[in-house]
Amino acid sequence: MSASEGSFSKARLESFSDGVLAVIITIMVLDLRAPRSGEPGALLRLWPSFAIYLVSFFLTTLYWINHHGLMAQARRVTTGLLWANSGLLFGASLIPFATAYVAETRLAPFPTAVYAGLQLLCAVAFNLVDRKIVLQRDDEAFRRGARIRRRQNQIAVGVYAVSTIVALFRPMVAILLFTAVALAYVAPTFFEGREE
Amino acid sequence: MSASEGSFSKARLESFSDGVLAVIITIMVLDLRAPRSGEPGALLRLWPSFAIYLVSFFLTTLYWINHHGLMAQARRVTTGLLWANSGLLFGASLIPFATAYVAETRLAPFPTAVYAGLQLLCAVAFNLVDRKIVLQRDDEAFRRGARIRRRQNQIAVGVYAVSTIVALFRPMVAILLFTAVALAYVAPTFFEGREE
Amino acid sequence: MSASEGSFSKARLESFSDGVLAVIITIMVLDLRAPRSGEPGALLRLWPSFAIYLVSFFLTTLYWINHHGLMAQARRVTTGLLWANSGLLFGASLIPFATAYVAETRLAPFPTAVYAGLQLLCAVAFNLVDRKIVLQRDDEAFRRGARIRRRQNQIAVGVYAVSTIVALFRPMVAILLFTAVALAYVAPTFFEGREE
Amino acid sequence: MSASEGSFSKARLESFSDGVLAVIITIMVLDLRAPRSGEPGALLRLWPSFAIYLVSFFLTTLYWINHHGLMAQARRVTTGLLWANSGLLFGASLIPFATAYVAETRLAPFPTAVYAGLQLLCAVAFNLVDRKIVLQRDDEAFRRGARIRRRQNQIAVGVYAVSTIVALFRPMVAILLFTAVALAYVAPTFFEGREE
Repeated sequence: MSASEGSFSKARLESFSDGVLAVIITIMVLDLRAPRSGEPGALLRLWPSFAIYLVSFFLTTLYWINHHGLMAQARRVTTGLLWANSGLLFGASLIPFATAYVAETRLAPFPTAVYAGLQLLCAVAFNLVDRKIVLQRDDEAFRRGARIRRRQNQIAVGVYAVSTIVALFRPMVAILLFTAVALAYVAPTFFEGREE
Repeated sequence: MSASEGSFSKARLESFSDGVLAVIITIMVLDLRAPRSGEPGALLRLWPSFAIYLVSFFLTTLYWINHHGLMAQARRVTTGLLWANSGLLFGASLIPFATAYVAETRLAPFPTAVYAGLQLLCAVAFNLVDRKIVLQRDDEAFRRGARIRRRQNQIAVGVYAVSTIVALFRPMVAILLFTAVALAYVAPTFFEGREE
Repeated sequence: MSASEGSFSKARLESFSDGVLAVIITIMVLDLRAPRSGEPGALLRLWPSFAIYLVSFFLTTLYWINHHGLMAQARRVTTGLLWANSGLLFGASLIPFATAYVAETRLAPFPTAVYAGLQLLCAVAFNLVDRKIVLQRDDEAFRRGARIRRRQNQIAVGVYAVSTIVALFRPMVAILLFTAVALAYVAPTFFEGREE
Repeated sequence: MSASEGSFSKARLESFSDGVLAVIITIMVLDLRAPRSGEPGALLRLWPSFAIYLVSFFLTTLYWINHHGLMAQARRVTTGLLWANSGLLFGASLIPFATAYVAETRLAPFPTAVYAGLQLLCAVAFNLVDRKIVLQRDDEAFRRGARIRRRQNQIAVGVYAVSTIVALFRPMVAILLFTAVALAYVAPTFFEGREE
């Protein structure tokens, strides 16, 4: 097999990752069980399900956006990148489960800690993907961006770890905490100066 | 990170949106629970499920078609466009839930109002996406089209709002109302003069 | 809106259709409920589910293959083609429901007739897609192929109609009948002379 | 129909296969039923579900990676290749069922044997796809790679067959066995010398 044939196509890695993330973000809705009663109260009682669904939708969208941003910078698909990416997709694939778990137990402490722990796992996997791409690049402009991302990622990993502990005592606080950090750390990185 | 690397690919935004909409439109069928009895009556009793499934399939197809039409006109993906689009996908992702809710309660008033309210939300999000794209464009031909779309969208938003109220009293009338307006306002916009 | 911007992209129509068909063909498996008992007998009792799953997988694959063959011949996406295609996807989207219906009732007569009737609907929608594309083309080579396809399609529609009636009395015979015609009429059309 | 029009697009075969595999790998999570209790014990009792989910995610990722590697070498899509590929997708589409079956029965002997047997089926289908592509190629570099793959595949098929038998007596051993061989035989083939 020649080298050019053997090399993994970045386009196919992106489209597969897009496919997996698109399915993840969409099938979560199947765990929002529609009430059998038409009374408004039956719907309102589902508020924990909607709250965590909204958070999961937002976080998964962020993973997708950041994944896109990272992949745009990859030069080629190495084995390490491929498996780091699979690790990230594996973590992300469990989000619908964790979401349903938190929803079913109505934001109970342990399930919320599991949810936060899963986000921690995803952040670590995301960081791994980032490092694999950093290895391919030695231009200064890229490295500066990578340093900023790494610092942000360390903060995120730290906050997720703290949230996992906090969740055991105050689940709502933990959810607010990691949602806030997700909002804060990811948004500016890839979009600086690209707003109309 | 250089500007060109950082810019979000329109192709990937389209393909992710396509993926999400394709999954949404397809998984709704999982909420059509097959009867365990082979008697024709058991199937016929599911008519409200089929009716709302047909409406949801039609509306989601329209969102997809219009989404395609809009995206074709975007010059680039700005942060604002990206998040407006995510808002639209979030609204659309709840359609299978709202469909199951209306089906389970056999077109009960409150669930149908929730369904109409969700369509209202999607129409507003769609309008936001439109505006983000308008900001990128200043050619006259585009602006004329955008003005027509805005007027149509205002009518649609109005009708959806009315339907949400009407649904609380006459669910069937509300469903007919917003299905009719969807048919009326979207179809001619993007396809004028392109029929064989 | 300029003409070139307004025209619907064939690539996006194909990729959306691919996405919908890929989800349809895959989510059917969710209606194959795994037995809770590890005894071989529990699995064997599911044979009607596996039989109809195999048929549905095969038929949906055929729709996908033929859809690809047809789309490759389309010059552009007209409104008519877009909606004929949506009709086909709508019919196809109900295949998981019909499959689960036949499986749940263990090949009962009426559900099998509904299944056959759905295939009839899909074949008619497929024929509509074909006609919309024929309208775009006037070269002789294409028309010859189109005439052959139309004759085959008429046979298929006829056999599906007969199967729908037969299913009410002998469901197994009906399933064998439409599986056989699917095998016979589609395979040679698009692949003639392309085997290694 | 002219030859160029009739030939099946490799890109569309790849994107459809990607779509199917992306859905397969993601919907498996729907069979991980979230506990209704927030007690840690309830989650821990699900360990067999998580174990087999992890194995299935890994094996499906491998099928996707290898599928990509193979397809990159195909010259064109022949009928034989198309149907061999459909056979592989059919086998893969049953993985969520087999995973749920093993999970529901908590790694019971017969279900684990069925799971191993399904992997055997997939490996055979994969081998068929490989052979169809070999028929298109006569360059020496390719053939050398193909010979290595064939030998590896024969070993894998052998080990899967043995695992199927072993599972009837020692399910855990069988799972470790085919996971180990999957790890061993696939990894080096396509990635040699492509790590950073």
